[in-house]
Amino acid sequence: MRYVSFRRPDGTPSFGRLDGETIVELATDATPSLKAALTDGSLATLPDGASFAATDIVRLPVIPDPAKILCVGLNYAEHVKETGREQKAHPAIFVRYADSLVADGQPMVKPAVTDRFDYEGELAIVIGKAAHKVAAADAWSYVAGYAAFNDGSARDWQRHNIQFTPGKTFPGTGGFGPALVTPDEVGDLAALRVQTRLNGQMVQDQPVSDMIWDIPTVIEYVSAFTPLSPGDVIATGTPGGVGDKRNPPLYMKAGDKVEVTIGAVGTLTNRIIDEQ
Amino acid sequence: MRYVSFRRPDGTPSFGRLDGETIVELATDATPSLKAALTDGSLATLPDGASFAATDIVRLPVIPDPAKILCVGLNYAEHVKETGREQKAHPAIFVRYADSLVADGQPMVKPAVTDRFDYEGELAIVIGKAAHKVAAADAWSYVAGYAAFNDGSARDWQRHNIQFTPGKTFPGTGGFGPALVTPDEVGDLAALRVQTRLNGQMVQDQPVSDMIWDIPTVIEYVSAFTPLSPGDVIATGTPGGVGDKRNPPLYMKAGDKVEVTIGAVGTLTNRIIDEQ
Repeated sequence: MRYVSFRRPDGTPSFGRLDGETIVELATDATPSLKAALTDGSLATLPDGASFAATDIVRLPVIPDPAKILCVGLNYAEHVKETGREQKAHPAIFVRYADSLVADGQPMVKPAVTDRFDYEGELAIVIGKAAHKVAAADAWSYVAGYAAFNDGSARDWQRHNIQFTPGKTFPGTGGFGPALVTPDEVGDLAALRVQTRLNGQMVQDQPVSDMIWDIPTVIEYVSAFTPLSPGDVIATGTPGGVGDKRNPPLYMKAGDKVEVTIGAVGTLTNRIIDEQ
Repeated sequence: MRYVSFRRPDGTPSFGRLDGETIVELATDATPSLKAALTDGSLATLPDGASFAATDIVRLPVIPDPAKILCVGLNYAEHVKETGREQKAHPAIFVRYADSLVADGQPMVKPAVTDRFDYEGELAIVIGKAAHKVAAADAWSYVAGYAAFNDGSARDWQRHNIQFTPGKTFPGTGGFGPALVTPDEVGDLAALRVQTRLNGQMVQDQPVSDMIWDIPTVIEYVSAFTPLSPGDVIATGTPGGVGDKRNPPLYMKAGDKVEVTIGAVGTLTNRIIDEQ
């Protein structure tokens, strides 16, 4: 299944199931959001509501309001190498806030204070049930599904000092979509590639299987230090090819189109606009 | 004024004003929490409710549920020096989650997975109104008040890789109290010292005026990359003297008593317990 969050024609937030070109609304008064449906366990059994043509509808981020968004840094060897950093025994984890998310089809916002706004295509995991101190062997059962993520980064702010968060959570910089795709629909994760295109040019293209710390290991590590809730997001890190490490560097500017494609997970597409 | 969050004798959360040894309840149905009172601007005008002897009451963290807790790393030159790090042109900012907070008088929890659980006494700022892109010159008007903070740190997890958050947000590791103390009550900030005592021994003792980036500068910097809301917390960094950099190192263990005293802001006291 593919689940999406969206605005009804009257502007109110809702969510539903994406059936081809149709969105079938699933929100109810008791379960108004996709996060709520994951929390109360009702997602698979909610009755069909109104139908909308997907193209008529303004999307919201897959989960508009995750309590926690944890990002794995340096999880692909090629990216570790291009940053000139040392590979460690554990993943680098930093935080992004929910108010930095943007939906598929909505603009990503280049902050006015940076000219080094960079893409980072990533596979995102959405947590399906409360997860604290999960063993890697049990981790798959905590995954509600996947989405593509674009961890838009103000490279100068990220490196103002030794902690990344200032460059990683500007409003409108985190692309998250197009849908929550359930594991059965994704199939063989190892077969997926994380592909990022900027104005049609392939700039990142690596298999998910290149991750240094695989998904169960990441869930075990993160849930060891912080409890996760339904709807929480883990962005699993970006492959090599980021714009900041190219010669010459390649940054995103207003008018650019950036796409993150991850096989059956689908394509997240965002145009870049300048901050107003 | 001094405001505290607490549990009523029936266990439900509330908040009120601390008048000496008495807590005067201020929560109403419309304004059930201190964060709500900051958000709706009613804090100074709420009617007095029930009174409780402060000693009879279980405290909650000053703000139990801040949406954002941003921590400044490396904001005192002595601490920068003891870590062997370079001083940069901008502060290091990392994130802690609200579910890691503990109240004054409640135990701080040494995670089972670390034997390097360290104290960090800090002055915390509580934000009083929505703050985005605030100029330093205007920053004071966004401060609702102050509290003491103990940024309890699992030093090994903090340094597993280059991002601090894994060591900084274990449940029960962030002491936050004893009260939200309004600026008029604090008086001259420059006169305050951040003093940390472990089992009565002074282990940190530096004036707030030693901060590399002062409070207006920190608010300007943080609010430039992320919007702040009433009740959000900025922990302004720890002075020199952390246990991990002592020779021999000095870590917190079950049974220890740790106190952070910041002049008129008061004293935050926590006992250490082992994680169950």
